[in-house]
Amino acid sequence: MKWCRFQAAGQVSYGIIEEQTVIAVTGSPFDTYTKTATTYPLHEVKLLVPVIPPTFYAAGINYREHVIEMAQKRGAEPAFPPQADVGYRANNALIANEEPIVIPKDATELVQYEGELVVVIGKPCKRVSEADVLDYVLGYTIGNDVSERTWQRGDRTLWRGKNTDTFKPMGPWIVTDLNPDDLRVTIRLNDQEMFTYGVADAIFGVRHFLSRMSQYLTLYPGDVLWMGTDGATENMKDGDTVEVEIPGIGVLRNPVVRER
Amino acid sequence: MKWCRFQAAGQVSYGIIEEQTVIAVTGSPFDTYTKTATTYPLHEVKLLVPVIPPTFYAAGINYREHVIEMAQKRGAEPAFPPQADVGYRANNALIANEEPIVIPKDATELVQYEGELVVVIGKPCKRVSEADVLDYVLGYTIGNDVSERTWQRGDRTLWRGKNTDTFKPMGPWIVTDLNPDDLRVTIRLNDQEMFTYGVADAIFGVRHFLSRMSQYLTLYPGDVLWMGTDGATENMKDGDTVEVEIPGIGVLRNPVVRER
Repeated sequence: MKWCRFQAAGQVSYGIIEEQTVIAVTGSPFDTYTKTATTYPLHEVKLLVPVIPPTFYAAGINYREHVIEMAQKRGAEPAFPPQADVGYRANNALIANEEPIVIPKDATELVQYEGELVVVIGKPCKRVSEADVLDYVLGYTIGNDVSERTWQRGDRTLWRGKNTDTFKPMGPWIVTDLNPDDLRVTIRLNDQEMFTYGVADAIFGVRHFLSRMSQYLTLYPGDVLWMGTDGATENMKDGDTVEVEIPGIGVLRNPVVRER
Repeated sequence: MKWCRFQAAGQVSYGIIEEQTVIAVTGSPFDTYTKTATTYPLHEVKLLVPVIPPTFYAAGINYREHVIEMAQKRGAEPAFPPQADVGYRANNALIANEEPIVIPKDATELVQYEGELVVVIGKPCKRVSEADVLDYVLGYTIGNDVSERTWQRGDRTLWRGKNTDTFKPMGPWIVTDLNPDDLRVTIRLNDQEMFTYGVADAIFGVRHFLSRMSQYLTLYPGDVLWMGTDGATENMKDGDTVEVEIPGIGVLRNPVVRER
């Protein structure tokens, strides 16, 4: 099942995508919902960020090759995380599919993509085992964890390095009934493939992260967990287009502009 | 003006407190609202967390004596932050006035209070000067940034050290038209005064934090910024009661229980 959040005829609502048609629903996938008789051609609606999370979690450092590449660029030894300690991102930075990533005037040229899987929670989840925790997941979408590397390294926190407005593209929709271990992420810059990796190569997988988090935290419907990226990441500049594709979900595509 | 969020007669709504009476409103202080004819005695309603923030910001390290005390306990040199880099907390951890702080079974005894001022944003705010930024503030409430110190130091992030369920008491209500520089914070454990400090002694003040954040981030109605605490903090144990008082706002009081 394919869930979207969209705007059409001045209304914002959740919708179910079947083939090239969006069926508007009342309610939401996180509660009860009812299909309405209102439908739109998919290409005629404005897709929105598929969910505004109550809490926006991010695994951060979670793939070996990314850790090694980032350490090399700093001239440091790679340090792999010893345990699954989740981080956070911020809702102000979310943008939808096709919306522009805006690089602020005072950012350096080191503004880079990080293409990754996003897990969307469907039901309240507290102290759930790894074996059972995927039952609390609604589905999966795609995220681009855009990062200004000088701010990321120089500031005490990740606030502007990761959460400058427009730095968190997410979408285009949420797909249910997937096995995250089967998924592959491919990142393209201006139609050129930059990197591809299997989600299952994570240091800590989806089941482990969610189960561990749920020992201390209640995960709520609509919460998202971004799983981290693998490999080297490169700079994006004014006029570029960045795509993150996960076959089985879709393509998250965003143009890049720099403020003048 | 004193705003609350409350439950009464099975309904959740915002309310305006006048003397010892809550006047229910339709809408919210963040949008348009209308007073209704429904009123309740204040002591008969259940006060809820006064706002569920879209993004939950925390200044973190922002008072000199707290930096010095924390460094001494670790046997380290105090390191003052060179610039106002904001951090984050998480909504799962929020509880209201009088609700219990629950210490998990596997926490150490180093579970400590941090009493502080909370700024509540009222209007969208992007690139606003220090001189004007308080015009975007709805008002102020009180927070207790409960922290498990071994997790705070040992984990890669603050996820369970700061954001374990119930570790973020906030309330009891929001008061408008205050000058943050005039406010004092007093923390009491079991009726004993533990520490008192002036909000204006912060390394970076409310105006500076908000204005700097707004250069990169849009602050949205309902977003909160916790300003950090000063001084030493002490352990809380099963059966304790912790109070944070800011005259002009009120008292945030929470019992402490340990899971068995």
